[in-house]
Amino acid sequence: MLEAIAQCTLDDDAFREDATTNSLQDYIAARTGHESALLVMSGTMGNQIAIRTHLAQPPYAVLCDHRAHIISSEAGGVSAWTGATVVPVTPKNGDYLTLDDIERSAVISDNIHHCPTKLISLENTLHGIVMPLDEAQRIVDWAHSNGILVHLDGARLWEAVVYASGRYSLRDYASTFDSISVCFSKGLGAPIGSMLVGSSEFIKRARWFRQSIGGGIRQAGVISSAARVAVDEVFGRDPYGEEGKMSGSHRRARHIASLWTQRGGQLLKPVQTNMIWLDLDASEVNPSYLREVGRQKGVRLSASRIVVHYQVSDETVSRLREVFDVVLQWPQQP
Amino acid sequence: MLEAIAQCTLDDDAFREDATTNSLQDYIAARTGHESALLVMSGTMGNQIAIRTHLAQPPYAVLCDHRAHIISSEAGGVSAWTGATVVPVTPKNGDYLTLDDIERSAVISDNIHHCPTKLISLENTLHGIVMPLDEAQRIVDWAHSNGILVHLDGARLWEAVVYASGRYSLRDYASTFDSISVCFSKGLGAPIGSMLVGSSEFIKRARWFRQSIGGGIRQAGVISSAARVAVDEVFGRDPYGEEGKMSGSHRRARHIASLWTQRGGQLLKPVQTNMIWLDLDASEVNPSYLREVGRQKGVRLSASRIVVHYQVSDETVSRLREVFDVVLQWPQQP
Amino acid sequence: MLEAIAQCTLDDDAFREDATTNSLQDYIAARTGHESALLVMSGTMGNQIAIRTHLAQPPYAVLCDHRAHIISSEAGGVSAWTGATVVPVTPKNGDYLTLDDIERSAVISDNIHHCPTKLISLENTLHGIVMPLDEAQRIVDWAHSNGILVHLDGARLWEAVVYASGRYSLRDYASTFDSISVCFSKGLGAPIGSMLVGSSEFIKRARWFRQSIGGGIRQAGVISSAARVAVDEVFGRDPYGEEGKMSGSHRRARHIASLWTQRGGQLLKPVQTNMIWLDLDASEVNPSYLREVGRQKGVRLSASRIVVHYQVSDETVSRLREVFDVVLQWPQQP
Amino acid sequence: MLEAIAQCTLDDDAFREDATTNSLQDYIAARTGHESALLVMSGTMGNQIAIRTHLAQPPYAVLCDHRAHIISSEAGGVSAWTGATVVPVTPKNGDYLTLDDIERSAVISDNIHHCPTKLISLENTLHGIVMPLDEAQRIVDWAHSNGILVHLDGARLWEAVVYASGRYSLRDYASTFDSISVCFSKGLGAPIGSMLVGSSEFIKRARWFRQSIGGGIRQAGVISSAARVAVDEVFGRDPYGEEGKMSGSHRRARHIASLWTQRGGQLLKPVQTNMIWLDLDASEVNPSYLREVGRQKGVRLSASRIVVHYQVSDETVSRLREVFDVVLQWPQQP
Repeated sequence: MLEAIAQCTLDDDAFREDATTNSLQDYIAARTGHESALLVMSGTMGNQIAIRTHLAQPPYAVLCDHRAHIISSEAGGVSAWTGATVVPVTPKNGDYLTLDDIERSAVISDNIHHCPTKLISLENTLHGIVMPLDEAQRIVDWAHSNGILVHLDGARLWEAVVYASGRYSLRDYASTFDSISVCFSKGLGAPIGSMLVGSSEFIKRARWFRQSIGGGIRQAGVISSAARVAVDEVFGRDPYGEEGKMSGSHRRARHIASLWTQRGGQLLKPVQTNMIWLDLDASEVNPSYLREVGRQKGVRLSASRIVVHYQVSDETVSRLREVFDVVLQWPQQP
Repeated sequence: MLEAIAQCTLDDDAFREDATTNSLQDYIAARTGHESALLVMSGTMGNQIAIRTHLAQPPYAVLCDHRAHIISSEAGGVSAWTGATVVPVTPKNGDYLTLDDIERSAVISDNIHHCPTKLISLENTLHGIVMPLDEAQRIVDWAHSNGILVHLDGARLWEAVVYASGRYSLRDYASTFDSISVCFSKGLGAPIGSMLVGSSEFIKRARWFRQSIGGGIRQAGVISSAARVAVDEVFGRDPYGEEGKMSGSHRRARHIASLWTQRGGQLLKPVQTNMIWLDLDASEVNPSYLREVGRQKGVRLSASRIVVHYQVSDETVSRLREVFDVVLQWPQQP
Repeated sequence: MLEAIAQCTLDDDAFREDATTNSLQDYIAARTGHESALLVMSGTMGNQIAIRTHLAQPPYAVLCDHRAHIISSEAGGVSAWTGATVVPVTPKNGDYLTLDDIERSAVISDNIHHCPTKLISLENTLHGIVMPLDEAQRIVDWAHSNGILVHLDGARLWEAVVYASGRYSLRDYASTFDSISVCFSKGLGAPIGSMLVGSSEFIKRARWFRQSIGGGIRQAGVISSAARVAVDEVFGRDPYGEEGKMSGSHRRARHIASLWTQRGGQLLKPVQTNMIWLDLDASEVNPSYLREVGRQKGVRLSASRIVVHYQVSDETVSRLREVFDVVLQWPQQP
Repeated sequence: MLEAIAQCTLDDDAFREDATTNSLQDYIAARTGHESALLVMSGTMGNQIAIRTHLAQPPYAVLCDHRAHIISSEAGGVSAWTGATVVPVTPKNGDYLTLDDIERSAVISDNIHHCPTKLISLENTLHGIVMPLDEAQRIVDWAHSNGILVHLDGARLWEAVVYASGRYSLRDYASTFDSISVCFSKGLGAPIGSMLVGSSEFIKRARWFRQSIGGGIRQAGVISSAARVAVDEVFGRDPYGEEGKMSGSHRRARHIASLWTQRGGQLLKPVQTNMIWLDLDASEVNPSYLREVGRQKGVRLSASRIVVHYQVSDETVSRLREVFDVVLQWPQQP
């Protein structure tokens, strides 16, 4: 990636003159099945601009999973910037929102006392769990028939496509929505950058909002060049993400999870992508003890969540196994 | 009231010169145990200005019951005007929020990813059910110790005080909160008007926000004069509301409920104030049939909720009984 | 008016059931040549809701005279509620904006760095001076051809129509704009109330915003009944306002101005309607001395502006003459 | 710079763990005489976050030069994000705002009809012209004594300090204000990045707002490493900017201007920093002809403004001279 940065163009993206950035935008638009794309600085910026752009005039409500990144980690930005009421919905199945959840929470009304739902913001993956394409499609169809738009926070959509193992492509999933944001950092490993995709009209308006918060940068090539490498090498050039390094991370995540469960550890959720959720309570492991043992073995562990990147080495896995041995007291004493 | 209107002063309240209005503001401030008060046009305006005034700078969240008037009936105004995230909380007891509900929903955090709770907006009565004073007090104490303010939507607070039958006064309850709004229409029966009360500093800032939405009117005496009569005659001049006409409405509501239950009808909630919630499903009464029979007997019924005002006459009660006879098929055929 | 209040309907306008209010809305819509109308509490509320309703999605700028009420007297409401940039324009002629002023100030641009003008808010009369209909028409035509809407703050439009003396009717002037707000207090003398008029679609959306700030009141008949009397008696039932009491106020204003100038006093502006602007500097009259003499003679004077209402009596005029005699030292000593 | 990027740390700045970024923030805070600093993506983002952070609760107005970047180039962001009324002020001297300009435009009032000035946003340089330190100091002193804060858009402050030639340092100028934003791109030539500086409390709150728009990036070292080089090499390590490459650019700008004037060309403004404003009208040069000749000679000219960066070579200057020869018809024919 550093090589790519060193060779990138350094023209001014605020005036749409940077070839590296323009090319990346066209590339991601094509791969996600949308007309147009816009480079942004982070997944949060992508979500915030998308939501701001979709909402025209209050009153309006935005529906999302109660654990969504836009609720938990974007500093109240949705309401603060747009004036939208954010309606948190708890999925009945505990994993992802279904049309049934949406239908009982949305407000479709002409009554002036109400705040009508105008946008649904989904997230995939959320806590490492994949939202099936057919459920997403059902929600979008219902939304559109009720005058509601649907955005996807797809920061980790790459992971969901890899999980699908060829059943659907990046384009199949992404083109379902009115807009999606995808991240080049996180699982893809680029240092900076996300992208917002949607219709040409949508991206044209999004560009105004990006400018109004100073999210448009001049020499964007520094960012775009690394992002292109990340997409092609980590997710892969093929539509299904089967040839990139990411699928290896998923295998590695499943392997780490099996090391945990083989030693008697319990999981909070199945391992679908690159996240492993340890059930520390059920496994009778004290979190601070886990962190302490990790520190001794040279592995930094934050809590019950382990996220596997493609840079995670055999060495690290080996250390993790040692940590598990200690905290799960393995092999068990006779 | 019309007499009072005919004799009111007609000076300019925007410049704080109207004696009738100034006097009413002082009167309500004194009766609720706050420093200052401000005439507003409606309960919604009182809530909206209160919330706007309490919130200084984002990010901030406002916590309230998921059924609160500010969520269900104020057209998304809180988020649209203030940019606050509104966090709906479902009370575990089904009737009113407790400190336990608040504690598990509030965000108290310095983490820049979060949206911290800065205001709790309670409502009493809500769906005709009274929030006990000691629970309110517990919530306010906890809130204050966490840097959170508490507003009360007290549009129907009069009813809660009458229900308390002398256990606490209007002042006892109202003075607990950082601000409250009370209504002169609804149960009190004045044609227009509400009042927001709080500290002098709070009301001073609220006055700016009232002006910015054009809620300050010039010849406010027309409204204030009727409101004063409504307070004194319907709630009553005594601190406990035991001498006004409202306590009669509550008795009448209980009487109407007993007519319903004596005929085998079921209720959704106990009758604490002036609202009767018929459980039409359990009573096997079709809502449109109920409305139709009401229409025939000259009583307008909207659904399962009956609200008793002090103007409800013996004649109306008598007609209601006839409606109940019909829809509940009473007396039962042998 | 008090009689009218005593006989008004008291139904619920929030549910559009009040006949007095519905009838007033239809009446004002018809007289101003628009499809629909909405009762609001004040001129400020009318302007604020109009501007909020016209603006769909930022970025947007609102252009207006630098002395406009929305800048000087509405507590920063436009930007605070809508997020619009307010662009103050100084009229070259010193009296009212012309198309030339507008053209050099408006931003018509697709460049994402800019904030495009989306609304022009005019005001007539402004400081008692009439904006000619042909200039207003030119501005509206130009605006529409550039995708810009035009609102009129017509709180004192009644006065402008009376000044026109039959050259154009209320309907001729008012129907030019996308929306106008008119006041029933001020010159018309009703205690409370204003009205916003525009297309049915516009008023439908305005109703949501009115609800969101609690500007919708329940028993609006109290206000509407007095407003109807004010329109018919003070402005008059005829299209040109020639038969109401207001034309008498204008004659009286011109008479008072002549009393001032006959005694050697100077005026800041010609007297077109009911406002007289005394040029105290040029007349060598100290403002506090003027107020003091006024107080002695029982006339309350605020500064250099005298506003004549239809209730101003011969007695008051006579006192004013005495005040002028004193402060202008009339008759002059030989 | 590319070398610096290749060696930077890649830790997570959202969690304040990136050593390169932390170090740059400390460095800029120290050099500007403020407690704390925050990396942002652009000058626009720095201004927007600064203004958003300074403003607590409406009503509030922000005063600035009518040509300020926050008005001309930030897509209406100030009002859209904060709800502030932006008051554009025209400097009487045509070059920069003075205290006199500010005093006649600011609103200092407790009257609820008004929108009080709460922030002044200055800009230095503006159109290449320096605002003298003593005038800035006078404005800040007056503002503070009236409860008003002052932000400086210092994207080009480096240029102003270099122009001062030792009379005041970067720290002397920058420490005058409640906050400033400085740019690493533009004159300094780094590919991306700006910095906001102010008190620790201010930066702490600014960090929340940066997060809410997604302006916080994870691997910020890529940006910070290049920025550090830009400051030290282009502005210089010394307090007065006399040892960096920028002072050479200023000399070069003056040289280019002299080439223009020697050939009979006129200037719109004196050349103080790196901007040359050609007066094409007075010089009788057609703008499109200028651009066309530039194109033939291989110099890209946008209009009447020429901006000199340190990368501008002797070769480019030589080509410019040829362009000037042609468009100014030099040497003059006998």
